[in-house]
Amino acid sequence: MAIDLAGRARFKRRMTGTLDQLESTIARRRGADASSSYVASLFAKGMPKIAQKLGEEAVETVIAAMAGDAKGVTGEAADLIFHLMVLLNQAGVPFADVLAELERREGTSGLAEKASRPQA
Amino acid sequence: MAIDLAGRARFKRRMTGTLDQLESTIARRRGADASSSYVASLFAKGMPKIAQKLGEEAVETVIAAMAGDAKGVTGEAADLIFHLMVLLNQAGVPFADVLAELERREGTSGLAEKASRPQA
Amino acid sequence: MAIDLAGRARFKRRMTGTLDQLESTIARRRGADASSSYVASLFAKGMPKIAQKLGEEAVETVIAAMAGDAKGVTGEAADLIFHLMVLLNQAGVPFADVLAELERREGTSGLAEKASRPQA
Amino acid sequence: MAIDLAGRARFKRRMTGTLDQLESTIARRRGADASSSYVASLFAKGMPKIAQKLGEEAVETVIAAMAGDAKGVTGEAADLIFHLMVLLNQAGVPFADVLAELERREGTSGLAEKASRPQA
Repeated sequence: MAIDLAGRARFKRRMTGTLDQLESTIARRRGADASSSYVASLFAKGMPKIAQKLGEEAVETVIAAMAGDAKGVTGEAADLIFHLMVLLNQAGVPFADVLAELERREGTSGLAEKASRPQA
Repeated sequence: MAIDLAGRARFKRRMTGTLDQLESTIARRRGADASSSYVASLFAKGMPKIAQKLGEEAVETVIAAMAGDAKGVTGEAADLIFHLMVLLNQAGVPFADVLAELERREGTSGLAEKASRPQA
Repeated sequence: MAIDLAGRARFKRRMTGTLDQLESTIARRRGADASSSYVASLFAKGMPKIAQKLGEEAVETVIAAMAGDAKGVTGEAADLIFHLMVLLNQAGVPFADVLAELERREGTSGLAEKASRPQA
Repeated sequence: MAIDLAGRARFKRRMTGTLDQLESTIARRRGADASSSYVASLFAKGMPKIAQKLGEEAVETVIAAMAGDAKGVTGEAADLIFHLMVLLNQAGVPFADVLAELERREGTSGLAEKASRPQA
């Protein structure tokens, strides 16, 4: 694969913007009218419904992956991240905390990485 | 909450860096020795094991959320994203495609957003 | 708890009859019109949809259990068994084979039981 | 398929015996030493761990089903029912109540069945 530096820079900007904006949008819709916003209706139903949706999207991701359906995986992974963001907001966990946890683990690599995780 | 502009900028840099680096690290470990890398051992076992791990981490996220355990949610969400990145690599789906799908949906907001989604 | 022998006998009859009849009913509806039978419509959609429903019902059972909702657990467990029966039919696995597997494991008890299972 | 009446009778006896005995065995092991009984160790860890195991077995059933692995489906379905029985005991729900709920629904068949369920 040829190195596409311009594309890479666009991708970096997009990665920041998309998740950053998604988290903000979800937080803003928290107070919206539940009859006009899907996100507001999820918050109104509370954690059991939000957690249920997260679980369902994970199941759909698993099924698309097992079916070898790359387009399906793309859509279900988007749904999964979307509902994870809603769940994090409801749980009072900033996405930055999740990233910090990922960074912390990233420090442990190679053999150390393996030793620090339970065996699959 | 006071506006912390410097913190916000650090967060944006971190969000880019963490997921960007995570995707690269996972791709790099694909070819590593399965006995010394957890990620390589997952790839060696194939999609059924990778999809199983994604499903398990989603279940653990659901349980931590229902238990009201914010620290648990943080850790399980990190595990979920980590294994989603592994699954995407195995499925041949760049994370950028998932972000593009999220962006595409983000365009539909308010009432339009509601109409374009199945009811929860 | 006082021993209720008559109730016990009724329960045994019901346990046989219910699952036996459920398996037969599901098998019979396989060939029914998908527009008039929920089961026939599931079979028409195939294993991905059937497996998705099983996963969703499991998630709902988990959530009802974590919410301490006994009535919810009863209903979700019924849904879970119902969709498991549909999945087994689609996979060509008689429920008797699942019971035989449970019996085989039941033979290993106490310490042996523990040793024969992966740690939780 | 030829009708095997003797086999059918054996199956009915087995269906009763196996699940009836499984529920009793699980209830009996509740008070056992957690270091020598897998079931006792699950009860000692409480509902979050029990619900997690149920969710994991459901995910494994989904994956075996999607992989077209009938033998795997048999084993995972057995694990799923086993852990469902543990969850029901922990939730204080007799299996007879789940069967009664299945019977209640069984009464609604054909078009009525479809109308009484949410669309898949």
